[in-house]
Amino acid sequence: MSNTLILLRHGQSDWNEKNLFTGWVDVRLTERGRSEASAAGALLADSGALPDVLHTSVLSRAIQTADLALEAADRLWIPVQRSWRLNERHYGALQGLDKAETLEKYGEDQFMEWRRSFDTPPPPLDDDSEFSQVGDPRYVGIDGDIPRTECLKDVIDRMIPYWEQSIVPDLDAGKTVLVTAHGNSLRALVKHLEGISDTDIAGLNIPTGMPLVYDIESGGSASGPGRYLDPEAAEAGAAAVAAQGR
Amino acid sequence: MSNTLILLRHGQSDWNEKNLFTGWVDVRLTERGRSEASAAGALLADSGALPDVLHTSVLSRAIQTADLALEAADRLWIPVQRSWRLNERHYGALQGLDKAETLEKYGEDQFMEWRRSFDTPPPPLDDDSEFSQVGDPRYVGIDGDIPRTECLKDVIDRMIPYWEQSIVPDLDAGKTVLVTAHGNSLRALVKHLEGISDTDIAGLNIPTGMPLVYDIESGGSASGPGRYLDPEAAEAGAAAVAAQGR
Repeated sequence: MSNTLILLRHGQSDWNEKNLFTGWVDVRLTERGRSEASAAGALLADSGALPDVLHTSVLSRAIQTADLALEAADRLWIPVQRSWRLNERHYGALQGLDKAETLEKYGEDQFMEWRRSFDTPPPPLDDDSEFSQVGDPRYVGIDGDIPRTECLKDVIDRMIPYWEQSIVPDLDAGKTVLVTAHGNSLRALVKHLEGISDTDIAGLNIPTGMPLVYDIESGGSASGPGRYLDPEAAEAGAAAVAAQGR
Repeated sequence: MSNTLILLRHGQSDWNEKNLFTGWVDVRLTERGRSEASAAGALLADSGALPDVLHTSVLSRAIQTADLALEAADRLWIPVQRSWRLNERHYGALQGLDKAETLEKYGEDQFMEWRRSFDTPPPPLDDDSEFSQVGDPRYVGIDGDIPRTECLKDVIDRMIPYWEQSIVPDLDAGKTVLVTAHGNSLRALVKHLEGISDTDIAGLNIPTGMPLVYDIESGGSASGPGRYLDPEAAEAGAAAVAAQGR
């Protein structure tokens, strides 16, 4: 018997709209992002994929997305657990920079290496940057270990323990689990679930606001590939993510 | 050393606006209720009473209130725990009835007994009523024990164990705790904290959307009476609650 896992990338944020690298900077959803989140919740309700429990990052845009989706699905009351381990990839010194300007300034190769390299992080963010998370009360528990930059491999290393210790037990208990998170923390999880290689993961883009559903066996392995509840819209959304900065 | 407890009654709901007895019926906030919740959050931020952890009922209007208040206070990321034990009083067969019509039909004495009697509940709600909670998935854990009606004494009996087992430990751990709940579950808690008699509690009205702050000693007793962050607005709000149905 398998249980249902639903992955949902947050809707458009202020900095998605402005085309800035965001990472751990705690920006909010735009009106469009709020609509995307509500539409995702309506899709969950229509398809009967009703979450029993919610896991979110500690970033507002993922939490807002969950709240709006659950409001639309009439499931505001489900238990929720939040973890920094589901956060977006820390974008290091790129946080706050314009994507198009960065592409123009550093060129295609460097730009794509920063965006999609598996194991090379961007330069680290200075602790005295206005975009640093050092001193943010939500990270008190992880103290000196707040990342200053991350590559996708770093995200996998900090996300998979949470998957195994917090999410899989909920699935094994027979619950339908909703995870609202971010482009790169969800890419990390999809890589793990579908056994995608370190090279091929560079080509995977996850659209915003599109519920992606997996059947998960006892112990946490996927029965098969994920399926978007609205495949056509998801394909268009993924193409838009791939084109960012162009 | 004491720790800070913040009580917040949800903002205006659809059925507050329509002047209906609500109880456990899961109605949503009105636009005015949403504004009240956001204003409460801004007041928390301005006063520096920033919650570290949130406790809510499992009713949408309290959860929406918390989400909007925490959004305004920039604390969406705090941990949250929900419990039916923080729910509004179950209003029995009155759920869904118009307050003014009920007052007219049954008269002042019966009306006030149903609203404010300490230990006489209204008639029970039929399980086949459209306003029954029997079969609602959020109450699976309490099964056959879903109330069909409650007096304030019943609310105290089911709420105080949650206070002692879930909220006091958070306070004792040094956390500032926000509880978003309902007129009668908060009256029950205030009665407990301030040692109000079974008779005098009938005269206590809690306004919507007004943060009420207590200093709580180790073990859960209050250092003194609660204080509203905006006392003038709270007084006007409490008078409006007292006048309901008139």
